[in-house]
Amino acid sequence: MIIDCHGHYTTAPKALEGWRAAQVKALDGRSPPPGPHPAMTDDELRESLEKSQLRLQRERGTDLTLFSPRAMAMSHHLGDARTSEDWTRLCNDTIHRVCTLYPRNFAPVCQLPQSPGVAPANCIPELVRCVEELGFVGCNLNPDPSGGHWKDPPLTDRWWYPLYEKMVELDVPAMVHVSASCNPCFHATGAHYINGDTTAFMQFLTSTLFKDFPTLRFVIPHGGGAVPYHWGRYRGMALDMKLPPLTEHLLGNVFFDTCVYHQPGIDLLLEVIPVENILFASEMVGAVRGVDPDTGFHFDDTKRYIDRAPGLSDTDRARIYEGNARRVYPRLKLPA
Amino acid sequence: MIIDCHGHYTTAPKALEGWRAAQVKALDGRSPPPGPHPAMTDDELRESLEKSQLRLQRERGTDLTLFSPRAMAMSHHLGDARTSEDWTRLCNDTIHRVCTLYPRNFAPVCQLPQSPGVAPANCIPELVRCVEELGFVGCNLNPDPSGGHWKDPPLTDRWWYPLYEKMVELDVPAMVHVSASCNPCFHATGAHYINGDTTAFMQFLTSTLFKDFPTLRFVIPHGGGAVPYHWGRYRGMALDMKLPPLTEHLLGNVFFDTCVYHQPGIDLLLEVIPVENILFASEMVGAVRGVDPDTGFHFDDTKRYIDRAPGLSDTDRARIYEGNARRVYPRLKLPA
Repeated sequence: MIIDCHGHYTTAPKALEGWRAAQVKALDGRSPPPGPHPAMTDDELRESLEKSQLRLQRERGTDLTLFSPRAMAMSHHLGDARTSEDWTRLCNDTIHRVCTLYPRNFAPVCQLPQSPGVAPANCIPELVRCVEELGFVGCNLNPDPSGGHWKDPPLTDRWWYPLYEKMVELDVPAMVHVSASCNPCFHATGAHYINGDTTAFMQFLTSTLFKDFPTLRFVIPHGGGAVPYHWGRYRGMALDMKLPPLTEHLLGNVFFDTCVYHQPGIDLLLEVIPVENILFASEMVGAVRGVDPDTGFHFDDTKRYIDRAPGLSDTDRARIYEGNARRVYPRLKLPA
Repeated sequence: MIIDCHGHYTTAPKALEGWRAAQVKALDGRSPPPGPHPAMTDDELRESLEKSQLRLQRERGTDLTLFSPRAMAMSHHLGDARTSEDWTRLCNDTIHRVCTLYPRNFAPVCQLPQSPGVAPANCIPELVRCVEELGFVGCNLNPDPSGGHWKDPPLTDRWWYPLYEKMVELDVPAMVHVSASCNPCFHATGAHYINGDTTAFMQFLTSTLFKDFPTLRFVIPHGGGAVPYHWGRYRGMALDMKLPPLTEHLLGNVFFDTCVYHQPGIDLLLEVIPVENILFASEMVGAVRGVDPDTGFHFDDTKRYIDRAPGLSDTDRARIYEGNARRVYPRLKLPA
């Protein structure tokens, strides 16, 4: 079985973003409130998936996607906590419907109702609702709810601890995932996403977070940002700081996905990061949609890179495709 | 000949940082002004270098370092433009003295007197002084003078154009290099440095800057941040945006150094980035000072990685070690 741990619902029916646009417009206080959550038929949901994610799963030979709301659209920086709660609930309910329609193809991962300057403890009720009532298996955690201004404390600050306590209690991991950038310095998918990954890793490295939460687990997406490419730098910095080796210090709690869109990048990832810490992912349908003219295949068809990676045993490949995801997401109950 | 294009004066005599500390203290308006620039003897300068950079050059077999003030200490976010000008002048004068003492070992690269919210045109007089009067061959340009808050416009905004016009006229490149981070989210050398590199690359990618300045040249340090590791992502995004291939679009103007502290990272860099765009560098004495227990050699002894890179011809190695630096820094007049 091949589990893709990183897929977003980037192809949702227009009614979803229409409702969001009305919600955001109403923030000016002069436009009408957005009204009840939009009615989307099961057929509309099916259609939005059959031509894209489901078709790609079939074509590429992957089985199950851990599916979460569109990351760019989380946009926690818009409005306030109430805005974020309402939008998040709609997004998570939509994911729940998708996973109920296609339980063999999708397992649900939730967005959290974060808001800049609002304590992450505020996200606990929605996390509990999603996990306990709706069967979600993980969440996405935005390390920068301000959208490129990085105004909240680092992920290792006690500010975040109540949420971590609940994650540990529920035994769900978080994928560390920023959202849109409202800072013109940062292109969202080209800079802010990758920077968010690198930033979070370095926050973890310089902290004792995993002493406080030995079973807390984070997946860093996009192949860990810049981290594997600079693995020597990080190993060296940890040594200079008299920290334990990174394998001991972090890799019981921190995992990387395989959203790296060329063979040399995947080969590097597999060479420097222990296989136990790598989870297969493609982020499809996501940041890069085209076909690589050098290979004739989609850039984000990451399964091809894993299949072709030199020196990877079948056992290790199976860990990356399935075993590690089952370990990191223990609530994932796979249909027979 | 082996030219290291990225070295900072991280070992300067204590008097230098002592003066800076007094200058920063005086910003409160209650402490006395810092007084005249500190007197440092030639012997003090020599001693600060003989035991570190010069010893390492000899031990590692490199010849000439493009030498600039300590990047972390630029700290353009402290004080105002006047603060930055005074400190920058002192730092550049000190680099000039070093390069006059050791013309075979060091060539000067200047810091710029940037300040958050102050137009980069304000840096032109110091750039001209350094290049025309003191023989500097390049400059370091901080894409985020606010120190981790990213408040100034992207490097591709017309805000920066007057400085670029002068760089083009003087025919000097800039290394894009952030400084200290005063944002607690960003560890300086572990996150902010690498993020700055990735961010700048993506700014360039989404701009027409090099249409406006066809001969403007930037070196992106630390192996280009996350860029080579995600080269497929960047190639794919450029295609999605209907841009020309990155080689055409950017690589006439953008270069990467080799400050990547392990063999797999260097191998990836050499595999995906054209050899014409790679300049040898170690950043010594810099962010990582220890010995890699896996190899028994210093992490930042990057010459070892280049020497051992598989499939690199002697001609290509010579370009990385010397030819590319001569092309990118044409003012570099090497002693016979």
